[in-house]
Amino acid sequence: MTPHLALVLGTARVGRQSEKVAKFVFAHLQNRSDLTVEFVDVRDHLFGATEGGDVAPWQSIAAKADGFIIVSPEYNHSFPGELKILIDSLDEEYRHKPVGICSVSSGSFGGVRMADHIKPVLIDLGMVVIKKAVQFPNVETLFDEAGLPADADRYHKRITEFADELIWFAQKLG
Amino acid sequence: MTPHLALVLGTARVGRQSEKVAKFVFAHLQNRSDLTVEFVDVRDHLFGATEGGDVAPWQSIAAKADGFIIVSPEYNHSFPGELKILIDSLDEEYRHKPVGICSVSSGSFGGVRMADHIKPVLIDLGMVVIKKAVQFPNVETLFDEAGLPADADRYHKRITEFADELIWFAQKLG
Amino acid sequence: MTPHLALVLGTARVGRQSEKVAKFVFAHLQNRSDLTVEFVDVRDHLFGATEGGDVAPWQSIAAKADGFIIVSPEYNHSFPGELKILIDSLDEEYRHKPVGICSVSSGSFGGVRMADHIKPVLIDLGMVVIKKAVQFPNVETLFDEAGLPADADRYHKRITEFADELIWFAQKLG
Amino acid sequence: MTPHLALVLGTARVGRQSEKVAKFVFAHLQNRSDLTVEFVDVRDHLFGATEGGDVAPWQSIAAKADGFIIVSPEYNHSFPGELKILIDSLDEEYRHKPVGICSVSSGSFGGVRMADHIKPVLIDLGMVVIKKAVQFPNVETLFDEAGLPADADRYHKRITEFADELIWFAQKLG
Repeated sequence: MTPHLALVLGTARVGRQSEKVAKFVFAHLQNRSDLTVEFVDVRDHLFGATEGGDVAPWQSIAAKADGFIIVSPEYNHSFPGELKILIDSLDEEYRHKPVGICSVSSGSFGGVRMADHIKPVLIDLGMVVIKKAVQFPNVETLFDEAGLPADADRYHKRITEFADELIWFAQKLG
Repeated sequence: MTPHLALVLGTARVGRQSEKVAKFVFAHLQNRSDLTVEFVDVRDHLFGATEGGDVAPWQSIAAKADGFIIVSPEYNHSFPGELKILIDSLDEEYRHKPVGICSVSSGSFGGVRMADHIKPVLIDLGMVVIKKAVQFPNVETLFDEAGLPADADRYHKRITEFADELIWFAQKLG
Repeated sequence: MTPHLALVLGTARVGRQSEKVAKFVFAHLQNRSDLTVEFVDVRDHLFGATEGGDVAPWQSIAAKADGFIIVSPEYNHSFPGELKILIDSLDEEYRHKPVGICSVSSGSFGGVRMADHIKPVLIDLGMVVIKKAVQFPNVETLFDEAGLPADADRYHKRITEFADELIWFAQKLG
Repeated sequence: MTPHLALVLGTARVGRQSEKVAKFVFAHLQNRSDLTVEFVDVRDHLFGATEGGDVAPWQSIAAKADGFIIVSPEYNHSFPGELKILIDSLDEEYRHKPVGICSVSSGSFGGVRMADHIKPVLIDLGMVVIKKAVQFPNVETLFDEAGLPADADRYHKRITEFADELIWFAQKLG
């Protein structure tokens, strides 16, 4: 089984820096032959059940996925509201699927509080939250014009281990 | 000084049950002569800075308020996304102002996890989170047609103590 | 594979009510033929690495276990300190093993905040936190002299589903 | 009114690095004439109500204090158990008093998750958690032999602002 992952960019803000992170992680994963990956921009799936928006496209993506990656900034110590609305819009589609978190911050703590605060939500929806995580602090100056972070080798190594754990769980639980 | 409070209904969902709670708490508070209170429906202030919406009306309300009451359900153990977007849209306007939480749930635990998960967010924005809180479990069957909860006397007593603490802080810190 | 579970009673307080819960859940599990279970009293493993106590007995138990059940009260919205010291004393022994939480409270909310606050700790130690959980509110009056809770049938049903999920994960991940 | 602060070192572990932080912050505060400060080592107040230890000395300190500073490491994303036992041992003594957190970590995130996870506990005990906080990441290499951190000027500035906010609240609420 080749796991299929959905990578969710969790902020819709104008000027969002996490887009660079999501694109970098996505490009890294596309180079692996032992998984497939789909990019999900929360901007394309705004407001789900809350506002009468159409949840069907997200539902179809989530149902098909064997695991999830959340790429999200930390706003005031927690997750963006639009990410929560997206996540809240489904339930059964997440069950017993692994999820990993790439957290982003403009400061030096890498968004780790957001990562912790979203864990009870993900568990309540039946997901398996993996231990491995990748943090992207100081995001505003981290990336060069080619979209590569400083210390790219270290990031590639960490994303590799992160994806390895996600795949391990997806295969065990699939 | 007569404190002016902003009571925020934090869910925009179709069929939201928390509206009954918000209206009941609001009506109770309107009967007090030692405070004034304004009703804020998150539906009227959707998306703040995230979507280019107009944050000015909320900014004006928050700047004028001496304290805040959040009435919110718990969705998957945490707060609704639209409430987070609203809160994230401002900063200085909240500083050193007390905030209290009325939590709502369809189950029997009264939304207390939502209340805990939003506290670090509120603290990071400089608010003073008070200890007193009022929980409304089993909300779908709690209210009668006149909008009164079962055991209304107990709820009136708890809201009175809750508002007393909020006013105490607003006057100390104002 | 018949999973072996370690059930941890997480409070050492004099007069602890959670002991009744732990004994009831333990007795229930002993009646199942598709698992084995061991009772761990935090009183017998106090202070681990912190105080130079002997962590070896707990280490041996944890290494042998295929999954964990934590039975714990909520003190001031979070977990007892002695439970945290016990958990902090190990690391690799927990890896990729499922853990479920039975939460206890003297009030009506069943200790659900404790359950949420311990989740990031357990995930950081590599455990898989399952969705199912069993709450024991109003614990001081819940049990009769024979050690059975009011509404025992409902509790037996919930513990059965809880243990089923734990076993499912232990077998998938073992 | 000259506020009296209790600074609590929250870990009892052998080899604890946070002791350097606590001593540095304490020495800084002793140089201020607009406050008095007392050093509380959790090692001297172990186990409170849990183990039948003598809670009276801590009770006396807490009752006298106008505000609290917690200096604590992060162990597995949350607070040390011995700190929780100490905090849980009292209640009324904390009421309406401000508390600030100095968080410590061996890694680069400064213990900020511990700081967030303890906030609901402190609020439930009636304390006012201030926004300002000071983080000490990479603690194992941060201090020189004289007990001064790298970039000491920046730390002095941050502790000054932190203590200013604590005093502001202590005076408003006292």
